[in-house]
Amino acid sequence: MKRTANETPEPAVGETTTAVHPLDVATDLTIEGEGLYRGRASSSYSNRVGTFGGFISATLLKSVMLHPARLGEPVALTVNFCGPLAGGDFLLAARPVRTNRSTQHWLIELAQADAIIATATAVFALRRETWTSTEASFPQVPAAADLARLPPLARHAWTERYDMRFVKGAPLFGAKVGADDSTSVLWMRDDPPRPLDYVSLTALSDAFYGRIFIRRPRWTPFGTVSMTTYFHTDAAMLAAHGDRALLGTARALQFRNGYFDQTAELWTPQGEVMAACYQTVYYKE
Amino acid sequence: MKRTANETPEPAVGETTTAVHPLDVATDLTIEGEGLYRGRASSSYSNRVGTFGGFISATLLKSVMLHPARLGEPVALTVNFCGPLAGGDFLLAARPVRTNRSTQHWLIELAQADAIIATATAVFALRRETWTSTEASFPQVPAAADLARLPPLARHAWTERYDMRFVKGAPLFGAKVGADDSTSVLWMRDDPPRPLDYVSLTALSDAFYGRIFIRRPRWTPFGTVSMTTYFHTDAAMLAAHGDRALLGTARALQFRNGYFDQTAELWTPQGEVMAACYQTVYYKE
Repeated sequence: MKRTANETPEPAVGETTTAVHPLDVATDLTIEGEGLYRGRASSSYSNRVGTFGGFISATLLKSVMLHPARLGEPVALTVNFCGPLAGGDFLLAARPVRTNRSTQHWLIELAQADAIIATATAVFALRRETWTSTEASFPQVPAAADLARLPPLARHAWTERYDMRFVKGAPLFGAKVGADDSTSVLWMRDDPPRPLDYVSLTALSDAFYGRIFIRRPRWTPFGTVSMTTYFHTDAAMLAAHGDRALLGTARALQFRNGYFDQTAELWTPQGEVMAACYQTVYYKE
Repeated sequence: MKRTANETPEPAVGETTTAVHPLDVATDLTIEGEGLYRGRASSSYSNRVGTFGGFISATLLKSVMLHPARLGEPVALTVNFCGPLAGGDFLLAARPVRTNRSTQHWLIELAQADAIIATATAVFALRRETWTSTEASFPQVPAAADLARLPPLARHAWTERYDMRFVKGAPLFGAKVGADDSTSVLWMRDDPPRPLDYVSLTALSDAFYGRIFIRRPRWTPFGTVSMTTYFHTDAAMLAAHGDRALLGTARALQFRNGYFDQTAELWTPQGEVMAACYQTVYYKE
């Protein structure tokens, strides 16, 4: 029998029934077999062309999170975007290719109308307590409450799903000149607020505007071709964080002949790195 | 008929016959079918346990470079290390999963004795000239010739294959205390020198000592579990570079509960980014 992966128990008597968050509605998967799922491209996370890459990445990760053979928690996820995800259903296939004592390696494919839309690899692991050190420095920033929210972008529904408050480096659509460097610093969280988990953290790690729009204000066709997220967290740290904003930082090394890179970090307000995300992005002209 | 992928023409009369470089010997692949190859773990690139990950990554990339269906040049390569590569033969399977007008997506698997040793995804692309900007700053450093070479590490044959001259952040095996931060800056090139190409650049992008050895001088079992290289170059830029050293920089954001990250950049002496490499690395204790 097919079942819905997001089934939740009935609320107990006296408990408040809360609406299901748009991200949970969007990433709801129907299990069609072991490691086989059916999903549906969400209009809540649509992009100018296709669907927000963070939604695709989150759904790919979720297919492993739901898999009965899963070992541990995510350490690394790489998603390769092969083509735009159109509206309608898609199929996911997640397969563990090797399971060691404390690590597990996955291959995942997302297909729509017989075309591969995205491939991914993931590393999951059982983590144990070790010597720990945050080496990077948390920047000096004002509190999120003291900053204005960036208005969402028309025709990019996914931007309505994120509350973004820029300290610096907001995208400069319509400005006369670009910024000298592409660095962005911003507070960011789901809208409506949602307790952070691996699925939402994956989506959030892609919720940065393309670096080129900070440097060069005119509209340019562009798209991420490959994205890698490293998870520096665990279930306890995520639970302790709750639904507060993360501080995001992003920058580029180089724009050259059709591709630029982006390095992004997502920080807790206490100055721990929650995740980092690396991308290589196509741009035209 | 099986043929060797590295077959080279006979030298012309009067031409100097040069020895084949150890990297080319090591990454020599026998074509067993379309996208199917047999290789051999090289003792020239052996590691304390198994074989240098840069050798594995270079071989995975080479399997696509040799593929008759290949489109363009590498933009991104992600390698997931599932287990150590022992001595002896291994098999490679490279498959294009989607070919667009200017991009192509690949899945690659490396197996030995029926176990998956590594999986990889790669993005290749036809690149065209666009607006270009190197945003990151090339550091102020002395010339390679003015620095002493770091002696290779016993029982790590691969370290003999790289001439490394550290400006700062050499590994501190045997020191009493570690450095305050894990940043390394060094000139690095193949030994013997070899004209740079995508295969050697891939290997070089993994030729950094684990960040933990700069911070914490004692020996720790460790190993990269996932590595992503972005290529910021093209064939013409590689040819112009020749066999000169690249400036490498590497640092970590965070060490936490068994995993740390590493971000590395490889620069030309003229201050262009040739490649960047991101890793997540397991460490014990």
